[in-house]
Amino acid sequence: MSWVLTEQDLHDLSIGAGILGTGGGGNPYLGYLHVRELLRAGARITVVPASTLEDTDLICPVGGIGAPTISIERLPNGGEYLGAMRAVEMAWGRPVTHVSSIEIGGANALRPLVVAAQAGLPLVDGDGMGRAFPELQMCTFAIADLPITPIALQDVRGNALLIRKVASARWAEQIARAATVAMGGSAAMALFCLPAADYRRAAIPGTVSLAARVGRAVRLARERHRDPVDAMLALLPGQQLCTGKVVDVERRTTQGFARGRVVLAGGSRRIGIDFQNEYLIAQDLETGDALVTVPDLICLVHPETGEPLTTEVLRYGYQVAVLAIAAPGPLKSPEALSMVGPQAFGYSDPYRPLPGDLCTAAGAQEHTA
Amino acid sequence: MSWVLTEQDLHDLSIGAGILGTGGGGNPYLGYLHVRELLRAGARITVVPASTLEDTDLICPVGGIGAPTISIERLPNGGEYLGAMRAVEMAWGRPVTHVSSIEIGGANALRPLVVAAQAGLPLVDGDGMGRAFPELQMCTFAIADLPITPIALQDVRGNALLIRKVASARWAEQIARAATVAMGGSAAMALFCLPAADYRRAAIPGTVSLAARVGRAVRLARERHRDPVDAMLALLPGQQLCTGKVVDVERRTTQGFARGRVVLAGGSRRIGIDFQNEYLIAQDLETGDALVTVPDLICLVHPETGEPLTTEVLRYGYQVAVLAIAAPGPLKSPEALSMVGPQAFGYSDPYRPLPGDLCTAAGAQEHTA
Repeated sequence: MSWVLTEQDLHDLSIGAGILGTGGGGNPYLGYLHVRELLRAGARITVVPASTLEDTDLICPVGGIGAPTISIERLPNGGEYLGAMRAVEMAWGRPVTHVSSIEIGGANALRPLVVAAQAGLPLVDGDGMGRAFPELQMCTFAIADLPITPIALQDVRGNALLIRKVASARWAEQIARAATVAMGGSAAMALFCLPAADYRRAAIPGTVSLAARVGRAVRLARERHRDPVDAMLALLPGQQLCTGKVVDVERRTTQGFARGRVVLAGGSRRIGIDFQNEYLIAQDLETGDALVTVPDLICLVHPETGEPLTTEVLRYGYQVAVLAIAAPGPLKSPEALSMVGPQAFGYSDPYRPLPGDLCTAAGAQEHTA
Repeated sequence: MSWVLTEQDLHDLSIGAGILGTGGGGNPYLGYLHVRELLRAGARITVVPASTLEDTDLICPVGGIGAPTISIERLPNGGEYLGAMRAVEMAWGRPVTHVSSIEIGGANALRPLVVAAQAGLPLVDGDGMGRAFPELQMCTFAIADLPITPIALQDVRGNALLIRKVASARWAEQIARAATVAMGGSAAMALFCLPAADYRRAAIPGTVSLAARVGRAVRLARERHRDPVDAMLALLPGQQLCTGKVVDVERRTTQGFARGRVVLAGGSRRIGIDFQNEYLIAQDLETGDALVTVPDLICLVHPETGEPLTTEVLRYGYQVAVLAIAAPGPLKSPEALSMVGPQAFGYSDPYRPLPGDLCTAAGAQEHTA
């Protein structure tokens, strides 16, 4: 069912997207403010299920590329996401009919809303990750071997480029990342523009509604003085791994990514969580065992408010709850794991999937906000 | 006067371009072989003076970008220069009528001939440097503030991108260089596609003929057992700085450039010559004085054969003659020196222009090959 995004939905979506962002995907707050201004100025954004797309529709995912540590400091000029979408549209020679999120986690859940508002286009309820990942090929559209080009990048200064053809999605990642670093580490991007049949085949449906529902549950739990973590876990297939205090954060922006490790002390054990924009692997530092790995989601939230904690805001002394959420099914095939499993990030630990499937959560309920 | 390029002209041009390349611009030999094959297969390449361009003509410079150390090891697939030109043509939405060299020095004198042969287009007798320089903004078209975009890059694997808009030519350089490094350090490029009036206003005319004449003079001197250095200096505004032996070469490929220093022992003095793809500054290592600096040309050649010595072939023990040649006049204005003077490369030495003007040499004689 289609629904029209209210300011309340937007707030809920930004909370839910922050949780699904697994520490990355960009901090949703700035995107939230931008879209809120557009809504207040009269924009009307409709969210439509992927199942209602017609064969002649053309869906263009848009989002940001770069290190979140940079995108929270350098504000967009406001026009670069629309500019990137228009460049892809021009390369296609055909009007885009719908905007989509490339990754529902983090700020990239919000950025397509900017374009939807500015271009007057509906947003498809779905995305290409069901979470956030740091690299372009780590996406269901790439796993399904759909064409990633044309890719448009545009930065705050108006520098604009179009990657026309690539030998592979990994080459696209390498070239786009280098260009993004040259542009200062953060840029707007449109890519994987797809006809409806291809989009429907590869996208993870329902994730915009899911993020809004999760955010709504957190908000209601806060209002009713209930446990927000319980509220999340009532909607998401997962469990609380631990709570603890941040005792160390090592963080560097390198090769266009925010990389590092956070160490938590919780009860008798210490847990290390590595990140590359997103949290990748949680390890028991005494035994060396991997507790959770990509593609399953490792989400850090404030234990009392449920506020998602992105990698760039972590500081010594923070209290955090660590959630482990089962990845969407399409990320668990052997082809998918070659792109998004622990080995794709250089870890030798095997992937031991958590029970459950985020897709079920996304498809289980209609939007009820 | 227009002229048709013979295999002999091609050989002469590659020698002359190597000399004007001031150590960089790519080693001309591979480009020479490629164009020779195209000529032998029946291609006919006409070189036309810029003065004969009509107002409706559209001129597209093409060349290679990257570190010469890489381009001599990784062969092109043969189609990427034409592909880059076609991408720029498509962005213009208008057929290109003439190909041009962006820099007459080094391999970039030869690469436009590949496109001219493949597309059946004439080559304009001129270029944007009158020599070779390592960066995109170091060019008379940029000094004249003409639009550098659209810039097409294409690599040996078929990765292809189009830089659509830039905040400045320096931004174009930064983004194109980063993309080139991501593509493996070497790519084909088309840029500064210009209507005839703009091209005529900013290009250095006659440099293709000049390079061919210089190469011809070297060839004839060899055949007649005369001094090839004297033969060059009869055509070029300059002098022999010294002869000497290479006693040290320090060379690294970094940030997409071949950078380093060669030290020569000649008579009682030692001369250090720094390079960034091209030779930038020659210094007396005893006194620290700069003997010649950019934009004037520092050319290293074999003293007996006149063979140009690019930075990547220099080795301990080589005997070299060092020539200092006066830059083209358009590179000596204050605006130009901010792009190509010693300070643009981080040197504090003032530019003390050598007497003469390469443009006079390029315009002084018709092609007589």
